[in-house]
Amino acid sequence: MVVGGGFGGLRAAKGLRRAAVDVTLIDRHNHHLFQPLLYQVATGSLSPGEIAPPLRSVLRRQRNVRVLLAEVQEFDLAGRAVRATGPAGEKLECPYDFLVVAAGAANAYFGHEDWRRYAPSLKSIEDALEIRDRVLLAFEAAEVEADEPIRRALLTFVLVGAGPTGVEMAGQIAELARDTLRRDYRAIDTASAHVILVEAGPRVLPAFDERLSARTARSLESLGVDVRTGALVARIDATGVDVDGDGGRGRIDARTVIWTAGVQASPVAADLARQSGVELDRAGRIRVQPDLSLPEHPEVFVVGDMTATGLPGTSPVAMQQGSHTAEMIRLTLAGRERRPFRFRDKGNLATIGRYRAVAEIGRLRFSGFVAWLLWLVVHIAYLIGFANRLLVMLRWFISFVTHGRVERVITRDGS
Amino acid sequence: MVVGGGFGGLRAAKGLRRAAVDVTLIDRHNHHLFQPLLYQVATGSLSPGEIAPPLRSVLRRQRNVRVLLAEVQEFDLAGRAVRATGPAGEKLECPYDFLVVAAGAANAYFGHEDWRRYAPSLKSIEDALEIRDRVLLAFEAAEVEADEPIRRALLTFVLVGAGPTGVEMAGQIAELARDTLRRDYRAIDTASAHVILVEAGPRVLPAFDERLSARTARSLESLGVDVRTGALVARIDATGVDVDGDGGRGRIDARTVIWTAGVQASPVAADLARQSGVELDRAGRIRVQPDLSLPEHPEVFVVGDMTATGLPGTSPVAMQQGSHTAEMIRLTLAGRERRPFRFRDKGNLATIGRYRAVAEIGRLRFSGFVAWLLWLVVHIAYLIGFANRLLVMLRWFISFVTHGRVERVITRDGS
Repeated sequence: MVVGGGFGGLRAAKGLRRAAVDVTLIDRHNHHLFQPLLYQVATGSLSPGEIAPPLRSVLRRQRNVRVLLAEVQEFDLAGRAVRATGPAGEKLECPYDFLVVAAGAANAYFGHEDWRRYAPSLKSIEDALEIRDRVLLAFEAAEVEADEPIRRALLTFVLVGAGPTGVEMAGQIAELARDTLRRDYRAIDTASAHVILVEAGPRVLPAFDERLSARTARSLESLGVDVRTGALVARIDATGVDVDGDGGRGRIDARTVIWTAGVQASPVAADLARQSGVELDRAGRIRVQPDLSLPEHPEVFVVGDMTATGLPGTSPVAMQQGSHTAEMIRLTLAGRERRPFRFRDKGNLATIGRYRAVAEIGRLRFSGFVAWLLWLVVHIAYLIGFANRLLVMLRWFISFVTHGRVERVITRDGS
Repeated sequence: MVVGGGFGGLRAAKGLRRAAVDVTLIDRHNHHLFQPLLYQVATGSLSPGEIAPPLRSVLRRQRNVRVLLAEVQEFDLAGRAVRATGPAGEKLECPYDFLVVAAGAANAYFGHEDWRRYAPSLKSIEDALEIRDRVLLAFEAAEVEADEPIRRALLTFVLVGAGPTGVEMAGQIAELARDTLRRDYRAIDTASAHVILVEAGPRVLPAFDERLSARTARSLESLGVDVRTGALVARIDATGVDVDGDGGRGRIDARTVIWTAGVQASPVAADLARQSGVELDRAGRIRVQPDLSLPEHPEVFVVGDMTATGLPGTSPVAMQQGSHTAEMIRLTLAGRERRPFRFRDKGNLATIGRYRAVAEIGRLRFSGFVAWLLWLVVHIAYLIGFANRLLVMLRWFISFVTHGRVERVITRDGS
């Protein structure tokens, strides 16, 4: 039984391909999500289906897998069962011999859950479409707004958190305003849009080498992004953000705020912790055993963003943990000894915009066009499905030639 | 001032390209909609952006056009102004010298508005996404349903109305069940899905030649569609449809019902009628003058599905009426006499599924592969935007080779 069809869960299920087991994969969405490109759905470059193939299709040929669209309600570790709710509210009880929990994490609002309505985060397809609507509607509202200060606030976009998602979103919104939309409006100059990247820490892309952080900041600034490090968010409301700290203090009037900071493990982690006595860290993540299992429950594994292992919450970590778990299950079934999980770091990549990216591979550090080409190749290679790769390549080709973005439908009102 | 960015309104705006006028185009959506392919969004073959380019982008190069995202509240024919509400609720008052109203039509539920929640119709991108969710969720719910009669009802799909949309949707759902999804599920055989096309009249595609109707019915039946003509819908509720009439009577247990019957002009038609004293037909459409203007109001034109002209509510009619209106405005400005509108019928096309279509061109009637190729070429040619044409061609190529449909994300719950 695998809970979660993200990078970790999918690798765990696929790793059991040749094992003499029946695998049930439960996810509350019908699709896998290629998170690293989600920001491109949020900014109109890609369509949802291109980065979110149905889990059933991905696992179609693996005959020992059954996929259930259901939401996990609770675990029964003693009774070895998962209780979940199906698409029409059916109560499902699924027994297991081995359990892999890979339910991921959300962004954390640090005790300010009320900020979420003003500053959505970007974790699901629904989030991406909501953010796309907000960004596009801000330009539409600015076009008919007579009041200059309100128009300025409508054309101000704040990204909270300068990890890869914050950096990529800042770059994309800047390009959207400067290139894609430039000639579409009559009353406003979209290129005057103000994109502000607010980061509490001292630098952007904190997981990267310091020199690459500095280059990223310069690159963003050349795109017109206002980078404010050392700036803490003190308050978010319907009309803007209050910042505080060394990097600047005061009010930013902005009608669009996007939250990409913090990590909070899926609430199912708390249920696991309660039943197994395992500890959670401050982000609600589980402190797993070296082999990724739960103490006292060698039949239960936890992988990906839900785990507190000192590793970053990235897709390579989740994928390798998923594969490791599948291998441990195979070893256990064969009566052999398990091994601790070791992460093989293949490097780090982030893109800022057209022809701009930064890369760390082993001791190599580089940026610019070559890093961007590498980013392109790696992301196409890791996308699932030949059709999706073709479509994304064509979309990118069109975007690079025309600066256009095809997916700009606003679906806000149900009419 | 043009109200509505559909086929009629867009042609009217474009037809004024070289006229010495300022054009304002108001639409409550930010996009044009290529309605003839909307059913492909509803069945996962195409993404919304591919058939719904932003109106601003379409009209970007026409410098005498301004696009407003706003919903028309009322007309003031005496004062020559349109009152509308902007994206953030702004009250807008827009004066005009000439007014073109092209607000389209919706499906009519013949006095049973309560059926709409059980049987959505297919007129907007939102409708298409809602129907896509319902269809895909029905298969998901069937996969976990233990009760056989409920599972049957979940795998039964009823299309009400056998015009082009009903026929196309029936063909697509049958192909989805038989080809695309066939190997994705474990507990159900998707090919056993029951697709029922219910039509009150004596034949499918009533606007076509009788022999083509018969061929279409046979073609649908060979795809496994259950075609029931002469069958009136007496009731729709959460669990199915009651039908009555010569074509069969009784209960159809079905959890997915899609309504494609009837025509009801946009409610703004009633406001125009009230102020100008013009007559409406039973579908709320306006009886316009031969030149498409309102009696007593030569400065106001009505085009497309809102008009009662005896012509079908198709995109060629709307496009030609839009162009005619633009020409009448140019003639009026030049002090010349107007002409009555004449429709040049270029023919009729409808597709049923892979390699199957029917065509009427002048006195020619044909069906099968050649008609399907013609359908393909015509639809690609009329799509707006080079990028969209490329993307749709690649999507279709992929679908024809793999039988796959990329856009199968279910976005029902906001999590």
